[in-house]
Amino acid sequence: MNSFILYNPTKLVFGIGETAKISQLVPAKARVLLVYGGGSVKKNGSYDQTIKALGRRKVVEFSGIEANPEYETCLKAVEVIKKNKLDFILALGGGSVIDASKFIAAAALFKGKNPWQILTSYGANVKEALPLGTVLTIPATGSEMNQNSVISRRATTEKLAFASDLVFPKFSVLDPTFTLTLPDRQISNGVVDAFVHVMEQYCTRPSDAPIQDGFSETILRTLVSEGPKALKKKDDIAVRSNIMFSATMALNKLICVGVPEDWATHLIGHEITALYGLDHAQSLAVVMPKLLEYKRASKGDKLVQLGRNVFGISEKSKKAAITKTIEAVANFFKKMKVGTEFADYKIDAKQAPAKVAANVAKHFAALGENADITPADVEKLLKL
Amino acid sequence: MNSFILYNPTKLVFGIGETAKISQLVPAKARVLLVYGGGSVKKNGSYDQTIKALGRRKVVEFSGIEANPEYETCLKAVEVIKKNKLDFILALGGGSVIDASKFIAAAALFKGKNPWQILTSYGANVKEALPLGTVLTIPATGSEMNQNSVISRRATTEKLAFASDLVFPKFSVLDPTFTLTLPDRQISNGVVDAFVHVMEQYCTRPSDAPIQDGFSETILRTLVSEGPKALKKKDDIAVRSNIMFSATMALNKLICVGVPEDWATHLIGHEITALYGLDHAQSLAVVMPKLLEYKRASKGDKLVQLGRNVFGISEKSKKAAITKTIEAVANFFKKMKVGTEFADYKIDAKQAPAKVAANVAKHFAALGENADITPADVEKLLKL
Repeated sequence: MNSFILYNPTKLVFGIGETAKISQLVPAKARVLLVYGGGSVKKNGSYDQTIKALGRRKVVEFSGIEANPEYETCLKAVEVIKKNKLDFILALGGGSVIDASKFIAAAALFKGKNPWQILTSYGANVKEALPLGTVLTIPATGSEMNQNSVISRRATTEKLAFASDLVFPKFSVLDPTFTLTLPDRQISNGVVDAFVHVMEQYCTRPSDAPIQDGFSETILRTLVSEGPKALKKKDDIAVRSNIMFSATMALNKLICVGVPEDWATHLIGHEITALYGLDHAQSLAVVMPKLLEYKRASKGDKLVQLGRNVFGISEKSKKAAITKTIEAVANFFKKMKVGTEFADYKIDAKQAPAKVAANVAKHFAALGENADITPADVEKLLKL
Repeated sequence: MNSFILYNPTKLVFGIGETAKISQLVPAKARVLLVYGGGSVKKNGSYDQTIKALGRRKVVEFSGIEANPEYETCLKAVEVIKKNKLDFILALGGGSVIDASKFIAAAALFKGKNPWQILTSYGANVKEALPLGTVLTIPATGSEMNQNSVISRRATTEKLAFASDLVFPKFSVLDPTFTLTLPDRQISNGVVDAFVHVMEQYCTRPSDAPIQDGFSETILRTLVSEGPKALKKKDDIAVRSNIMFSATMALNKLICVGVPEDWATHLIGHEITALYGLDHAQSLAVVMPKLLEYKRASKGDKLVQLGRNVFGISEKSKKAAITKTIEAVANFFKKMKVGTEFADYKIDAKQAPAKVAANVAKHFAALGENADITPADVEKLLKL
């Protein structure tokens, strides 16, 4: 186990009806920017409960955050904050709304010339930020309990991330009820996204970290068990609760402490999304099984451990165990109704690998926990 | 799973040599009270590294914190703070030193007549506290990453606890190197204490909380695997690292969220310690196997799960699985060289149960996750 810092000051408020607690969590005199996306929050009850809990506080609404939140849209929100002298941001929605709100919180108090520098500095020049709370409606990204944000800029077709301890949400309300009305596709994507988040932090090489490994395997087992149930029984609040808690724990900087991290699947997936418009989780489902197969030597020990502890695979031969484990990962994605082949999305599987690899090459020389996946490797692995 | 709040703002700084980071973690102009117990911190290197990291800051030392920290001693520390106008507390040691420092932090700014009221109100009247950091030298209590403290008062033979979000340490440095020089007895006690902490939050009744259960089982498995190794190989830093991280995660308010908690073993154990002077962990090792046997009906499902997932017990008969699991718990304590019978401590096993039960009756009508362990039950179970 390597040295690490474990730090997460977000207060997670979990349970049915807990949105009412916002009345105590937001300062009584706060002037609030309420940020959301489209109309779904008005259908699932979260908007009404949030407005009620905010009571007599000054609230200005800002809707229209995109699925891949746009820089230009965020700047409009910053203008609204300045014009109305607002001092608290409440994000109501999924990872996109929360990511946007984090950027808005930092940009509103940014002293530099151009808030885009927040992203080009990966958050290093964020010196202050407005306080931020969230009401989560889509379990997937973990943004509700971490300090990360990804913002897109249409004008330049860039998609950049930043991180800052100053944008940890002060609180996040997780009411699984709000997830009952989600379309299947968002449940599927959320479960696959959370699964791959864990894999990026777990499926690297053994590093004598049984706490981190066991926590990761616990989240993976829970997603494998509960994910398919959520697609079958759409009113099971216990299943939705376990998925919601899993997705938060999958990326709240707990399971990664002191161990190597990969993230190649995400970085390759981002390019596929940029090129072909696949949902984020769909791109991950295409990449991960191929990447595991390509790196079966360096990831072999962890793949055997994954197979044994998550999928109950007990092949004596290491080779067979690895093969069965990679199959089990792909089968899980398919069971969640997320396709694992380019063909599933009507993409030409002969041309795509080279195109994706070329775009990876624009941003990275090498990927993975061992920094040994070059763009040439990306092309090869995507052909598997 | 029940509704819950998950909140822990302590920054955990883990790794060899990380004490040096104190130079950045303590405000540059802080006036520091350095709290410790006896001389062990001067032998294991932690004192020298801490003093070096504090650099030119004003530091006043306060040593002599007892194994069960005394109210009267803490009040003396408060006087030192006031006299020297100190504004930061740095606790250097194990759970006792940290618990004392939490009380000192609250008492130093307490506006009421009598700081004892902090304990009689269970922390409800703590409105402010001095900031506190810790350098942990004994893995056991988890105090380095929670908001709890237990203080004793010799004059009245009372031992009371308090909790307040205001006494979460701002940071805790965990350098496993400092544990290499611990006597076996402290390693044994720490491992058993952490194991029982997890059990109090896990071994109750099923509540469809796979994340919490899996995290708990991970910590238990790690302690069962690493604990005996620490007694055999005394210079294995990887083993010490895993034990240290386990003990923190065992009681940092993570695994308890949304699930029932027991704590009967602790509350009965406290009376045994008060009556017979056993170490805290020794008292737990005497109580827990007997309590599990006595409550084998209501705890049966969780005991089977514990046996399967922690001890690899796969008996088909539920009765046999429960019996084997309880044996495995007792055997683990024995393997850690902590006796599980009154006789191991030269205590009369015929008289003790009634005496302990009588003292429990002074404080509690009933114990356990179902509040169904009366003092009469305590006497019966201790006779098992």
